[in-house]
Amino acid sequence: METMFGLRDLQRAAYAERLGARPEDVALTSCTSEGIVRVLGGLDLGPGDEVLTAPDEHPGLLGPLGTLRARRGVEVRTAPFEGLADAVGPKTRLVACSHVNWVTGAVRPEGLAELGPDVPVLLDGAQGVGAVPIDIAALGCAFYAGSGQKWLCGPVGTGMLWIAPEHREQVAPIGATYLNLADPAHGLESPLHPDARSYDSPAISAETSAAAVAAHAVLAEPGWDAVYERARTLAAGLADRLRERGRTVARRDDTTLVSWEEDDPEATRDQLAGAGIVVRNLPGTPYVRASVGAWNDESDLERLVGAL
Amino acid sequence: METMFGLRDLQRAAYAERLGARPEDVALTSCTSEGIVRVLGGLDLGPGDEVLTAPDEHPGLLGPLGTLRARRGVEVRTAPFEGLADAVGPKTRLVACSHVNWVTGAVRPEGLAELGPDVPVLLDGAQGVGAVPIDIAALGCAFYAGSGQKWLCGPVGTGMLWIAPEHREQVAPIGATYLNLADPAHGLESPLHPDARSYDSPAISAETSAAAVAAHAVLAEPGWDAVYERARTLAAGLADRLRERGRTVARRDDTTLVSWEEDDPEATRDQLAGAGIVVRNLPGTPYVRASVGAWNDESDLERLVGAL
Repeated sequence: METMFGLRDLQRAAYAERLGARPEDVALTSCTSEGIVRVLGGLDLGPGDEVLTAPDEHPGLLGPLGTLRARRGVEVRTAPFEGLADAVGPKTRLVACSHVNWVTGAVRPEGLAELGPDVPVLLDGAQGVGAVPIDIAALGCAFYAGSGQKWLCGPVGTGMLWIAPEHREQVAPIGATYLNLADPAHGLESPLHPDARSYDSPAISAETSAAAVAAHAVLAEPGWDAVYERARTLAAGLADRLRERGRTVARRDDTTLVSWEEDDPEATRDQLAGAGIVVRNLPGTPYVRASVGAWNDESDLERLVGAL
Repeated sequence: METMFGLRDLQRAAYAERLGARPEDVALTSCTSEGIVRVLGGLDLGPGDEVLTAPDEHPGLLGPLGTLRARRGVEVRTAPFEGLADAVGPKTRLVACSHVNWVTGAVRPEGLAELGPDVPVLLDGAQGVGAVPIDIAALGCAFYAGSGQKWLCGPVGTGMLWIAPEHREQVAPIGATYLNLADPAHGLESPLHPDARSYDSPAISAETSAAAVAAHAVLAEPGWDAVYERARTLAAGLADRLRERGRTVARRDDTTLVSWEEDDPEATRDQLAGAGIVVRNLPGTPYVRASVGAWNDESDLERLVGAL
């Protein structure tokens, strides 16, 4: 137990460092989607309340929102990602969208940071944390749910949920499992942790925590910023090459994702797979998406563009 | 993804085999407590409804019940473990208690199997599954939440939730994360799996699933029943020895737990720890508890009794 708690402290501190947050505001989750569920399930939302989101968000966000609508009669309205801030209406109690859009690589819409405390923003950070630098206070969100197994190179089964201290009271824990209790010896009256530990996942194996901590230790060595900067620079270079080849690249920002239009995205995906290049299509969109990591180099980009 | 889904199928089949259940009725969770939260959070309970439990249940059950009371105004009434069936009242909508009591090793109260469909029973199986043989249909419960990391010898971060098919409609999924969706390509309208997969945990690492499957493979070899029978026989033998030494043993059944009274349980625990024997005290009770596994032998029991 002591080993496990020690590793959890280190894992929480690692995520806090990446977010520019205090460890006591960071809950350990098993994935981005679990953090989203804990926020949506914990907020006091019901009929007459509206959550605003974009139609092309990831199933990891739209799935929980669909459940919220079916279960609690909350309205879920969609507006284009770029226009979310302007689409806020009188019934909007929450804006839920991606930090970095998984379809295009665009960064969260302008204006979301200025909505004020009555319209908190939940960011899906699956393609954000680790891929782009984060100063959580400057992001202007109330809740940030991120992945440990994507750009932080940790194991599957890891993630984090940041809740702004001033919004914590709004989010009731879904259920107090053992690790959420400050003192489990008081039965039904056992008090919860007064900090983000009250939202921790019920169980994460010590091995999984250890792997997450180890990944952070590598990437937090002096110079790690350059690793992620390299990924984003390579991604920008890929976008340029694609445009040079006449491709239409989706509007993107300084992130690690590059999406471009193809007449038959699925066929292009298969064609590139045949050439040893792993990209994905995004069903319902005209895009093929490349996810560019620091482990790539210029020759990878040449190969991709050459194989089109 | 294919590897992970394949391992999840095997893990689900392993748990189903242990419970005598159909795999499609078994959800994969991260621990017993997560299964409990998914049932309590999914049932339509509110003010005027009552959940009946015992005062000495594990924090993994009392914690979630405390949250349910605080959050949704559900009444939580306690009655002695043995008398739960008789304590059911007109407002009782659920009985939630352990399958094998963690304090005493007693098996679930008589009569709970006969309460009928209007008073479903949720069993906390943390000390049950793997320790005692289970024929889930004969248990007479609607919901069974169990651990993978205790008597099934799997890794931390594993567990299962069985929901009787006729009670599935009563339990709304807390939130539909990716693995709960039958087809995630339909945004807010993405349908849930029509079976217990709609209650699966958001994420379990493939390594964790593989370890759970491997543990089952060992214990499911011909003769594994004898392994668990051995543990229960040794436990009964320990209870006899303790009685011979004049100790009062808590009322127990044919399980792997043996609790006996000591004037200063904490001191006895420390004294035995000094002799290389790991037992625990149970705060708030007069008991010291030994958890007897198939890995023990007669000499371990001799050592324990001799060191008292």
